[in-house]
Amino acid sequence: MFARMRIPQTAGRLARAARPRLYSTKPNPQAGGPGLRKAEIAVFSLAGVLVGTLAQQIRNRRTQAEAPVEKALGSELSEVKVPVSIPYTDYETSPKPDYYSDTSRPMHERMESFVLDLQDRLVTALESLEPSKKFLRDRWEREDGKGYGISCVIQDGTVFEKAGVNVSVISGKLTPGQLQSMRARNPKTAQTLTSDDYEFRVAGVSVVIHPRNPYAPTAHKNYRRFEVYKKGSDTPVMAWFGGGADLTPAYLFEDDVKYFHQTLKDACDKHDPTYYARFKKWCDTYFTNIHRNETRGVGGIFFDDLEDKSPEELFHFAYDSGNSFIKAYVPLVAKRMTMPYTQRERDWQLIRRGHYAEFNLVYDRGTKFGLMTPGARIESILMSLPLTARWEYMNKPEPGSPEDKLLQTVRKTSEWAH
Amino acid sequence: MFARMRIPQTAGRLARAARPRLYSTKPNPQAGGPGLRKAEIAVFSLAGVLVGTLAQQIRNRRTQAEAPVEKALGSELSEVKVPVSIPYTDYETSPKPDYYSDTSRPMHERMESFVLDLQDRLVTALESLEPSKKFLRDRWEREDGKGYGISCVIQDGTVFEKAGVNVSVISGKLTPGQLQSMRARNPKTAQTLTSDDYEFRVAGVSVVIHPRNPYAPTAHKNYRRFEVYKKGSDTPVMAWFGGGADLTPAYLFEDDVKYFHQTLKDACDKHDPTYYARFKKWCDTYFTNIHRNETRGVGGIFFDDLEDKSPEELFHFAYDSGNSFIKAYVPLVAKRMTMPYTQRERDWQLIRRGHYAEFNLVYDRGTKFGLMTPGARIESILMSLPLTARWEYMNKPEPGSPEDKLLQTVRKTSEWAH
Repeated sequence: MFARMRIPQTAGRLARAARPRLYSTKPNPQAGGPGLRKAEIAVFSLAGVLVGTLAQQIRNRRTQAEAPVEKALGSELSEVKVPVSIPYTDYETSPKPDYYSDTSRPMHERMESFVLDLQDRLVTALESLEPSKKFLRDRWEREDGKGYGISCVIQDGTVFEKAGVNVSVISGKLTPGQLQSMRARNPKTAQTLTSDDYEFRVAGVSVVIHPRNPYAPTAHKNYRRFEVYKKGSDTPVMAWFGGGADLTPAYLFEDDVKYFHQTLKDACDKHDPTYYARFKKWCDTYFTNIHRNETRGVGGIFFDDLEDKSPEELFHFAYDSGNSFIKAYVPLVAKRMTMPYTQRERDWQLIRRGHYAEFNLVYDRGTKFGLMTPGARIESILMSLPLTARWEYMNKPEPGSPEDKLLQTVRKTSEWAH
Repeated sequence: MFARMRIPQTAGRLARAARPRLYSTKPNPQAGGPGLRKAEIAVFSLAGVLVGTLAQQIRNRRTQAEAPVEKALGSELSEVKVPVSIPYTDYETSPKPDYYSDTSRPMHERMESFVLDLQDRLVTALESLEPSKKFLRDRWEREDGKGYGISCVIQDGTVFEKAGVNVSVISGKLTPGQLQSMRARNPKTAQTLTSDDYEFRVAGVSVVIHPRNPYAPTAHKNYRRFEVYKKGSDTPVMAWFGGGADLTPAYLFEDDVKYFHQTLKDACDKHDPTYYARFKKWCDTYFTNIHRNETRGVGGIFFDDLEDKSPEELFHFAYDSGNSFIKAYVPLVAKRMTMPYTQRERDWQLIRRGHYAEFNLVYDRGTKFGLMTPGARIESILMSLPLTARWEYMNKPEPGSPEDKLLQTVRKTSEWAH
């Protein structure tokens, strides 16, 4: 079990030596906590030792499997080199970057530095697990000069079938329609934004990761700071923070889900004891395929319009919640990415991905808004869709099977953290 | 080219002997028409002769292909037995069934007989091409006793990766919401339905067919008659006919598309010289992925609220347009289902299917209405989704490639029939 894995000191030291700027040299008193947190750095030396054996097992299973699509799709799991450590999972103990506390810079600049840094950290962490290719980095500029984005995408990798880590930094004039919709959503906004002449700045990072192994869960996260300015002013009249992170496994490993939720909760708890409970519930409600009476996955956190603390406090929460995603998710992939599987598990994964696509196309507000926006960059909006998906008529897992266990889990909501 | 294929007389005679009730014994004067129509019966004796060679070619290509997913998915094209003829494609020359002209029976009963007969005909025609399995026939009843459906579904066949031919015959009370929406849509309805106490009867057939071979196009059709009754009365106060048929190829064969459109147009022309042009345009407008600025496929016909002729005339149009779909589509599958292909064509087909799924989940009115209806049968509503789909980031076919040719075709509308 992941939660019970211990990090060999040698590997940890090696990692720190290799990436000195990322790791603190002395333990941070805040870095303790429950057992799950102690084990978080996810050194898979045990897994490393086992890779040869597992790969052989996978090959054997494959030969037996009726329909070895995996091989066809290029997944040679025997090539996976499990790294001794995953960078950036111990953000709490590592030195804070300059933008964290440099109050001399405007918040929107610090937020920009943060999302770019977070993108780089997450991509580096994910690449440490992927032996076959690097992320493609793709910078785009808005034609009107009012913003840019950096898309980091990997496709058809050995470990990651499709993953995107996208940053966008945009400014512009708020349209009457946008103002109206913002006022309708929030009474405080309605009181504050009284005229029709406002500009906005938004910096955000948006992530969807679909690993290839059916036992490795899909995950999504999205964090952004939205600021509204009176025209000509450099001080925002209002600003809020929104986002979330959620996990969508095809197979349920309770320890993994508990670890994911606990890691997000720990980051929330550092800033507000009410955040996790509120945001966890919001996540369960939002990420629901209403027509199937199923949550998309096992949840996480989701929130919007967060402006209940000072900008500085909210920025530190953004930093912790954004970074905690790396710690919460990447080790789970490392743990599961070499597990042997057959066509049965692959088919079930693709069926669950079909449901993922349904949520994104039918309900997801960001996707719907994007699709209806003339001139929007469709490739970025639909990057969240899986590389492959499957819809079987009347697929019903056998009661008591691992597939049924997942289904029973997404048909209710559960508490995963304490 | 399909349009230039000739039907060997012997094969035609054999087919007639085997299925005497389906074919007229003397030529019908209406059965003539342009060359495309004369060739329509789709006897693939030439293809039959070639099957051995093609299968060998496919095997060879497969060995060369980098990622032979097809084999993994169970497509042993060498097993395909191409039939000498496809039943039910010559509906114009075959004797009309009793319900066609039995005016002693209420129209809703005749419509029910028609959709059940058409379902049977289409399933028989499709099964004549499929060597590996039969359609699963699945009857369901509404819990309130006010209707039933028969789903005929095939999945993971050799020729048909997924196909559904579903009939439903439903009655009930019109809800205030439904009445309001019907009135909003149609001024005539608004004038006719003045009170709030109406019942409806609807009989329809709904079809989606996804062949496995990337060169064989996907097709959809849907025909239904909707009747509104004043409570207690057995004579409808109004009734209309709606539906359509459209073709979604992954690769463009202009002759195939012309044949498909021409066959639908011929059926329309028999009843109204304006139908095809109006319904073809409606189809192009409706089946559009607005966010991609692409039509779903190469169109066909689409219409609703059709009540511009007597019930008898409209019923005969329903008969011809429903039956013409078999003639328009099934021969195209027979023609393309044994063409050799590689992983490249398969991947492109799955990408196009991803766009198909986008249309159905984002725009299709029937699907959206179904998903929002509490207690609806989700399996039937989402039967239209392909078994497999694929979303690649930034997939851009090479200019001038066959994939690009399809893309250029769906980015504009074209005239296919004369």
